[in-house]
Amino acid sequence: MTPTPFARLHHRDEPLLLPNAWDHASAMALAAQGFPAVGTTSLGVAAALGVPDGAAVTRDETLRLALTLGRGPFLLSVDAEGGFGQDPDAVGEFARQLAVVGAVGINLEDGVGSAALHAAKIAAVKKAAPDLFVNARTDTYWLGDGDERDTLRRLDAYQQAGADCVFVPGLSDPVRIAALVERLDTPLNILYSASGPTLPHLTDLGVRRVSLGSLLYRRALGAALETVADIRAGRTPRGETPPTYDHVQGLVGGS
Amino acid sequence: MTPTPFARLHHRDEPLLLPNAWDHASAMALAAQGFPAVGTTSLGVAAALGVPDGAAVTRDETLRLALTLGRGPFLLSVDAEGGFGQDPDAVGEFARQLAVVGAVGINLEDGVGSAALHAAKIAAVKKAAPDLFVNARTDTYWLGDGDERDTLRRLDAYQQAGADCVFVPGLSDPVRIAALVERLDTPLNILYSASGPTLPHLTDLGVRRVSLGSLLYRRALGAALETVADIRAGRTPRGETPPTYDHVQGLVGGS
Repeated sequence: MTPTPFARLHHRDEPLLLPNAWDHASAMALAAQGFPAVGTTSLGVAAALGVPDGAAVTRDETLRLALTLGRGPFLLSVDAEGGFGQDPDAVGEFARQLAVVGAVGINLEDGVGSAALHAAKIAAVKKAAPDLFVNARTDTYWLGDGDERDTLRRLDAYQQAGADCVFVPGLSDPVRIAALVERLDTPLNILYSASGPTLPHLTDLGVRRVSLGSLLYRRALGAALETVADIRAGRTPRGETPPTYDHVQGLVGGS
Repeated sequence: MTPTPFARLHHRDEPLLLPNAWDHASAMALAAQGFPAVGTTSLGVAAALGVPDGAAVTRDETLRLALTLGRGPFLLSVDAEGGFGQDPDAVGEFARQLAVVGAVGINLEDGVGSAALHAAKIAAVKKAAPDLFVNARTDTYWLGDGDERDTLRRLDAYQQAGADCVFVPGLSDPVRIAALVERLDTPLNILYSASGPTLPHLTDLGVRRVSLGSLLYRRALGAALETVADIRAGRTPRGETPPTYDHVQGLVGGS
């Protein structure tokens, strides 16, 4: 099968830097910065709605956001937690709906649950939506203790199930990253961390995709709190001048 | 009628600093900073959805956000553009729905349209939801040329129609602000601007409410773009460390 444009972004000299948006304006603003692909952040989607992340309660909202973003001037990859359910066929059907509304990628996390179930979900997604690029995430570092053998066992299973890329958030040790790149058949996705390797360093290590997860959403929230704290204290707000009202209106095609 | 807790916040020695949220997490984060009342920003709500602000297309989304925020641990004031329609009774009914879901205030803008129509909307809202605090906004400065006679004529009409507070975004000249405070029967709301008077200065001028409009949403968006630009350039992101994943999960009652 011919690789999709989104798949091809994972096989270049430089890794795909995938920023994660939480709403329409943030996605459009990121695309306007020249990013060819934009992801979503399940934490941002859940927090905006007032429900917890990772609790499989934002299926409809995730689809709704994809419906809004799927026709945007960028390639859309959707963070779908664990697929919002335990039935592989239902996860496959959800992935098919995402593809229908314009998503070209999906991120599926195992939550350190059964590797066999996660592999079955991946296989179901590839069957239901063959062109949808599947980023298979294991949470062995994110939620667990970073067991290397368990990580490799899981990633092997996910690759065999048809994953197009594998993702190990929480892994930031350069030696382990380089070793994992050696072992994998698919590209490796690493979650950027300010305390981990820089983007050039991750490039040197052979990482093919660097995503930002909830970082931008959290930074956005933090900056808003700093601004109001400064105003309350009678100070001029710290930091750069924000985008203007007209600029934000322009992001959504308003005047 | 006994003043509501929200109304009383407009009659203290210090003005009510009303920060404007755009989603559930931002509202909860602001409340956690000790703000007793939180507003919404119609630009933020519209931009998040991918539609223009001020175009009367976010009625349902505004109600949906109020439904989410109306039970929060803060007093909620809703930015409702011009009431999402030209029929005063329909605007009154919308305001009643906002009050039912827990809003205690509404912000209604005239868009420099007919002052008589805006006054009719205000009267309809006060009739449909007597306890809902009405902040009547005129856009003579925001959209127009800041004609002082027109501004006064409008604000007089809005006060007579039952407005609890009047709002003149775009007005930042201290002399004009002080003169307006003298002329008004109701509290004056001013939109904070980094290039205008500081909060202590606005306090000295007699302003009773200072709102932030879309500033926090725009600053949030800008900070996210700065962060991704720094990462792309191989730099450590500028600014403060963002709230953690767990902190944001905690804002919505997650683990």
